[in-house]
Amino acid sequence: MTVRALSTLSADELDEFLAAQRTAYDTLVARGLSLDLTRGKPSSAQLDLSDGLLGLPSTTKDASGTDVRNYGGLAGITEIRSLFAELLNIDLEQIVAQGNSSLALMREVLTFLMLKGAIDGAPWAGQKVKFLCPVPGYDRHFALLEWLGIEMIPIPMNADGPDADAAASLAANDPAIKGIWVVPTYANPTGDVTSVEVATKLVSMPTAAPDFKIFWDNAYALHHLTSAETKSADVISLANVAGNPHRPIMFASTSKITYAGAGVAFLATSKEQIAWYADNLGFGTIGPDKVNQLRHVEFFKDAAGVRAHMGKHRELLAPKFAELSRILDERLTGYDVATWTNPAGGYFISLNVLDGTASRVIELAKAAGVALTPAGSAFPLKFDPNDRNIRLAPSLPPIAEVTGAAEVVATCVLLAAAEKLSS
Amino acid sequence: MTVRALSTLSADELDEFLAAQRTAYDTLVARGLSLDLTRGKPSSAQLDLSDGLLGLPSTTKDASGTDVRNYGGLAGITEIRSLFAELLNIDLEQIVAQGNSSLALMREVLTFLMLKGAIDGAPWAGQKVKFLCPVPGYDRHFALLEWLGIEMIPIPMNADGPDADAAASLAANDPAIKGIWVVPTYANPTGDVTSVEVATKLVSMPTAAPDFKIFWDNAYALHHLTSAETKSADVISLANVAGNPHRPIMFASTSKITYAGAGVAFLATSKEQIAWYADNLGFGTIGPDKVNQLRHVEFFKDAAGVRAHMGKHRELLAPKFAELSRILDERLTGYDVATWTNPAGGYFISLNVLDGTASRVIELAKAAGVALTPAGSAFPLKFDPNDRNIRLAPSLPPIAEVTGAAEVVATCVLLAAAEKLSS
Repeated sequence: MTVRALSTLSADELDEFLAAQRTAYDTLVARGLSLDLTRGKPSSAQLDLSDGLLGLPSTTKDASGTDVRNYGGLAGITEIRSLFAELLNIDLEQIVAQGNSSLALMREVLTFLMLKGAIDGAPWAGQKVKFLCPVPGYDRHFALLEWLGIEMIPIPMNADGPDADAAASLAANDPAIKGIWVVPTYANPTGDVTSVEVATKLVSMPTAAPDFKIFWDNAYALHHLTSAETKSADVISLANVAGNPHRPIMFASTSKITYAGAGVAFLATSKEQIAWYADNLGFGTIGPDKVNQLRHVEFFKDAAGVRAHMGKHRELLAPKFAELSRILDERLTGYDVATWTNPAGGYFISLNVLDGTASRVIELAKAAGVALTPAGSAFPLKFDPNDRNIRLAPSLPPIAEVTGAAEVVATCVLLAAAEKLSS
Repeated sequence: MTVRALSTLSADELDEFLAAQRTAYDTLVARGLSLDLTRGKPSSAQLDLSDGLLGLPSTTKDASGTDVRNYGGLAGITEIRSLFAELLNIDLEQIVAQGNSSLALMREVLTFLMLKGAIDGAPWAGQKVKFLCPVPGYDRHFALLEWLGIEMIPIPMNADGPDADAAASLAANDPAIKGIWVVPTYANPTGDVTSVEVATKLVSMPTAAPDFKIFWDNAYALHHLTSAETKSADVISLANVAGNPHRPIMFASTSKITYAGAGVAFLATSKEQIAWYADNLGFGTIGPDKVNQLRHVEFFKDAAGVRAHMGKHRELLAPKFAELSRILDERLTGYDVATWTNPAGGYFISLNVLDGTASRVIELAKAAGVALTPAGSAFPLKFDPNDRNIRLAPSLPPIAEVTGAAEVVATCVLLAAAEKLSS
């Protein structure tokens, strides 16, 4: 049978196709696979790239002569701030370096906003608070808001970033809308890059809430899969020009540069908002792990060192993405039941299957030994209204397992589509 | 002039004494000293004891085979939990190991209580909340409560711990009283040890608030200055026996065992409350720095390793405490204008001067080049109603500087007292 859009098949052709997919699926199930495409975790080989950290630091003083082993230094050591200020295109006084988790910094900022209020507003606790959530998006962002009882308003995530017109029209009229999530460069999960135009709209749009914040999660700013090395929009400068300097708060980390569990996280925003953050932070800690920060500085030496290091990650990651794409291309093209992204960076491929079949695909894959992120994960409250989106993360498994898992996914997509169209 | 209680001196004798102290003080000022007894920071020599950490870990897998470099492991690695469970006399499932700051864990628990509520109560945000604060106490504890808008009720800190009768009578009748701070073993700043009897009263007393919590900051549990090695009351078992298993939450860290800025912090409480903590924590982080935890495990090997290590700290610290005590004894005994503690552990000596003179002593010392913690620091809102208490921290400076600083403090105490009695 030639490859055709499944919707154009006759009833008999569809029966035949469904039977063929069931047979193929049963063969895969019989293999007893145990594969995992769920989370954006680095592989062991990627972690090995940073094992030079284990023997560092070679000294216990930073450039200013401060003993990194002792208390203090709330903003982090200057050298690591300076290094990532350069890489993220930020002024030194606009960035702080903290512990091992940028998610923890997002949580901190949200709890400070809830309990103490922004520099331009009252505490959010006790107020009705809503956030704009470009979808599909990052499940942990949405879970954090759900935890805090913040209402989530989905808006479309487009190829050039969040739908800024939708964001603007919502934010202009509802003072309860206090923020938006953006993963600007290589979005999670679509891989799309927020353009300078969209970033400009987001920092410029009038908002009914004076304390509207853009949570700019720059998790993959340096995580290129091609030599194009797309630049991330300079949201902090753009916001400054737009007269809304306190609107964006940028987060980043070395979690997917060095060790996922033992890196350094960064927060960048206006000088005034850095002071607000540090003032609040200072009540709850005496300072971050400066030894680990110095360890990272010695390991990288300079920005070129980080870039060279990211090139090694690319060598390990790009073939896995290529393999996943190759199999989706080979197996799914022409049936008109799925589309998927071809990211130039980041950690994910976003797969949209026939409406109403994502849960079934995930269920089928699970029964065939391939773990996928639960249906709806990329949506607030885990509700994908079209039951369409599946996030694929090929970084952790070895390439042979990516191949095997992708074959299962492709078969499940076709089987679920045929089932749906037959019903 | 023989040493006599200053209050028994005649006017002429007091004039003479005052003049002598002014002369002594002026001589000290002329020396142009720059000394610091403010914070309980370890000295470089103490930090050097842990430099074996810098070449560790030698492996990247924990005992369960988990790669410590990657994401995950919210509770911390089992080996470090097990090590400190033994040292702190806790069951393994009742303790978690986190990042570098126990203060950050206290902040986290307080923000979870504010925003989400305890397992036995509603969110504290929006309610009137009060805490019992034994005084003198730890300034950062009080600052954290002030930051959160929690009202602080001072109660006496006695030689056997917080005044449990005062605590019981207040907590029994006011449902807004939600907690108490306790630094049980070697209190900050008095060095006093909370007895099993007092601990039993605190965990047993009826409280009007069902979600009353004891913040049991066991910062100095292993930090002995004598071979007596006082045991810390087993508050978690006592609370269990009393039928209030969720009342105490214990905090501890290696900040004053290994590196003050790069250690591992611990939280211990009932199994159910550990689950509550981890459930909330999981929204805001994927896991602590497990590499640093494994580094610590390899460095210590076992509980005996930690105890031996603490013996080395004692060798460095005990002479500084002895020197500070010696000078206070020599210079202040007999004048009846000051009392001070003689701690068997911890990081501080608490000095009570003539009522109404602590601020003046600190001002005089500053002008003579000796930095002391600001007056009132050991009290909520920095208000010492008797203007009496000064916290002395001899750990950081070399012993010669402890001598010099103690001489200045003694002179300032006598001068301020003479001024006060003459006025």
